Amino acid sequence: MGRLVVVGGGAAGMSAASVAKRRDPELEVVVLEQGKHVSFSACGMPYWAGGIVEGGQDRLVVLSPEDARERGLDVRLQTEALDVDPEARTLELEGPEGRASLGYDRLVLAPGVEPRTPWPGCDLEGIHALRHLDDGIRLVEDLGRHAVEHACVIGGGFVGLEMAEAFVHRGIETSLVHSGATLMSGVIEPTLGEMINRRVRDAGVELILEQRADGLEGETRVTGVEIGGDRVTADLVIMAIGARPRTELAEAAGCSLTTSGAIQVDGRMRTTVDGILAAGDCVAFPHKLTGEPTFLPLALHANRAGRIAGETVAGNDARFPGVLGTAITRFEDLEIAATGLTLPAAEEAGFDAVAEAITSQTRAGYFPGSSDIHVRMVVERGTGRVLGCQIVGGTGAGQRIDTAASAIWMGATADDVEAMDLSYAPPFSPTWDPVAIAARIAGRRA
Amino acid sequence: MGRLVVVGGGAAGMSAASVAKRRDPELEVVVLEQGKHVSFSACGMPYWAGGIVEGGQDRLVVLSPEDARERGLDVRLQTEALDVDPEARTLELEGPEGRASLGYDRLVLAPGVEPRTPWPGCDLEGIHALRHLDDGIRLVEDLGRHAVEHACVIGGGFVGLEMAEAFVHRGIETSLVHSGATLMSGVIEPTLGEMINRRVRDAGVELILEQRADGLEGETRVTGVEIGGDRVTADLVIMAIGARPRTELAEAAGCSLTTSGAIQVDGRMRTTVDGILAAGDCVAFPHKLTGEPTFLPLALHANRAGRIAGETVAGNDARFPGVLGTAITRFEDLEIAATGLTLPAAEEAGFDAVAEAITSQTRAGYFPGSSDIHVRMVVERGTGRVLGCQIVGGTGAGQRIDTAASAIWMGATADDVEAMDLSYAPPFSPTWDPVAIAARIAGRRA
Repeated sequence: MGRLVVVGGGAAGMSAASVAKRRDPELEVVVLEQGKHVSFSACGMPYWAGGIVEGGQDRLVVLSPEDARERGLDVRLQTEALDVDPEARTLELEGPEGRASLGYDRLVLAPGVEPRTPWPGCDLEGIHALRHLDDGIRLVEDLGRHAVEHACVIGGGFVGLEMAEAFVHRGIETSLVHSGATLMSGVIEPTLGEMINRRVRDAGVELILEQRADGLEGETRVTGVEIGGDRVTADLVIMAIGARPRTELAEAAGCSLTTSGAIQVDGRMRTTVDGILAAGDCVAFPHKLTGEPTFLPLALHANRAGRIAGETVAGNDARFPGVLGTAITRFEDLEIAATGLTLPAAEEAGFDAVAEAITSQTRAGYFPGSSDIHVRMVVERGTGRVLGCQIVGGTGAGQRIDTAASAIWMGATADDVEAMDLSYAPPFSPTWDPVAIAARIAGRRA
Repeated sequence: MGRLVVVGGGAAGMSAASVAKRRDPELEVVVLEQGKHVSFSACGMPYWAGGIVEGGQDRLVVLSPEDARERGLDVRLQTEALDVDPEARTLELEGPEGRASLGYDRLVLAPGVEPRTPWPGCDLEGIHALRHLDDGIRLVEDLGRHAVEHACVIGGGFVGLEMAEAFVHRGIETSLVHSGATLMSGVIEPTLGEMINRRVRDAGVELILEQRADGLEGETRVTGVEIGGDRVTADLVIMAIGARPRTELAEAAGCSLTTSGAIQVDGRMRTTVDGILAAGDCVAFPHKLTGEPTFLPLALHANRAGRIAGETVAGNDARFPGVLGTAITRFEDLEIAATGLTLPAAEEAGFDAVAEAITSQTRAGYFPGSSDIHVRMVVERGTGRVLGCQIVGGTGAGQRIDTAASAIWMGATADDVEAMDLSYAPPFSPTWDPVAIAARIAGRRA
């Protein structure tokens, strides 16, 4: 009974709303969504923008507002929550019909993320960030309207790499600016990162490494990006320099943030303010290895956190189990995946750790389609516990990260992983699984 | 120092020989091999026979006899060990130069397996089993010499299914005879097995289920197979009804066998007779879940056992860690994998278990190339411990078995697997990993 208001109609917000309504059909559930869509696949946007996923924008929609309403959710689009009074339990909001006030019994904050500090010039035409489906639609419309000659992607992490693939797929000349010496440097260490650099260059992308973009040029439409003293011509720019949690409303309510800048929640997604929960990319998740609250805007955790918030609202006791930071992507046929801690991250977290990389094959060497796979494993010295794993390789390489993720989740040592009975057949693997080989080699040094 | 004699030049024998020699370069190492080749990929033979792996027989050779000799191994081909005197530590053998006697300080038995009871007619032309590379070469020569019109594969397990794929790839009409109602019934339960049946039938293979072949017809070359009261025309027959451990020499030496019929060894691959070790497909491996000695002729275990035997000979303390029975194969683009126990096997082993199957997708539903994946998970009632997992699905489905194998190896419960931070990106997975979904559904019932 009562009214649940959910701020944000993304994966977390809609999961929370759906679960709460399913568990307690009498509950009034209002979802406030700034954009025109709810519940879409944010991770699919680069593939849709690149034409790799064909069809209209509805391809990425998980649940339409109409379907959500049929489930009994009061979805209000283009409606922004401006302020909150946690004592009175009321929200100030602005929607198509103007300003209004809305009372709540329980509030779930799931506003997601926003792009990091935009610079002057970000309002030029041709500048895009990919946060919401509406951003993706705007990008695709721009690509349709404007014959883009040279795209510049700023940021060489997941979204940056995926957008570079998208532009290559569309036949657009592409530059990729990255602050690190190797791409994906947040999760992939240089030995393996070099292979990503090489593959991306081979695809014709101009890599601008160890540089930061510091300005945009243009009158109405962007014409270039300033990088150090230099400039890159670009009539379309993707800002993929990462995101930060949206916390204005939480801060207005007096909710505590963690040192990561994200909203502090307990395992049941309750903030420090009574009646207010938070879920999704805006909250900090406990890291399974370090125990630290971690800002990790990934779809699985947003979905899981939303479900748990919904259960909590319904009075059920579900607990968020923690994160390892497992992630996967690809650049064309090069697969890239990581879980747990890199060596620098492990050391920063106070672990005495070693790491080794091995090269093996994705299939039996003689089997058609076999290609190189590189696995780097991070192991705690003394205990031999596996702390992290990174994989770069051809088709079939990336999925193996889950062998490591499963092992790390269960507290496995390198010896455990080496001993595991992992699958083998010539079309799928060499006799000794590459992850097990990496465990053997890294384990010896630990 | 002294002389190590290894009987059998397959994966286990050559691993044992190589490791022992590497650790103790002074050791004289003699390998007796009945065939003309050592150290080849037995698992690759169906793909080579089918022309999926192109090229000559050397494609499957891991180490040639010449290379082995360069490593200091005294490899004697076409040489059979006939008898052993464990007191005198001598072997009777017959080779190209006739009979001889050979003393040993340590003996490693690694003769592998032989096809199960052959029937009358097995010496007709056109009858093949695939145990040794020489068998594969004979098959490929037969396929080259004789324009095969109709092949009959007897046995619908791993080798049977792989050979059916091979014949389909060669454009040969194929019948497949299997004693169970669904293919792969030893490791895949009927709900998922039905999908294999369907896929194999769709490829044009005539499936003859719940039948046993009981005779072969023909004068010099096979012309048909008798099945129940019926017959199937066939001018080439593959006997893929499983294998049994070769134990004659072990028995002659007085080594104990286990109830599985395979040679009893300890964790260091020592038989019950002093000075005699055994390794590879001929020994029984301890099952990680049941603790029972298990006959499981799979390449990884043969390799691992061989290495361990080599370490033991060299005086090092390596231990065989146990098996789960993890295995993977494919039929064209349908991937099939299993680990741990099926529900019937779990019940037979005394577990109170439940199982559930789920259907999900190999990629995000909207992503090109996404296809169905079916996951069945077996969970112990009460404890919630995962006991087994089976997967059937399109490209990318099979590799996920290692997520489950890793989890089971570490003693994970269904709740653990559901909670794991597994990788997600649209080209690789739906947001919720199919193995995690299966854990959630099966876990609820446990």
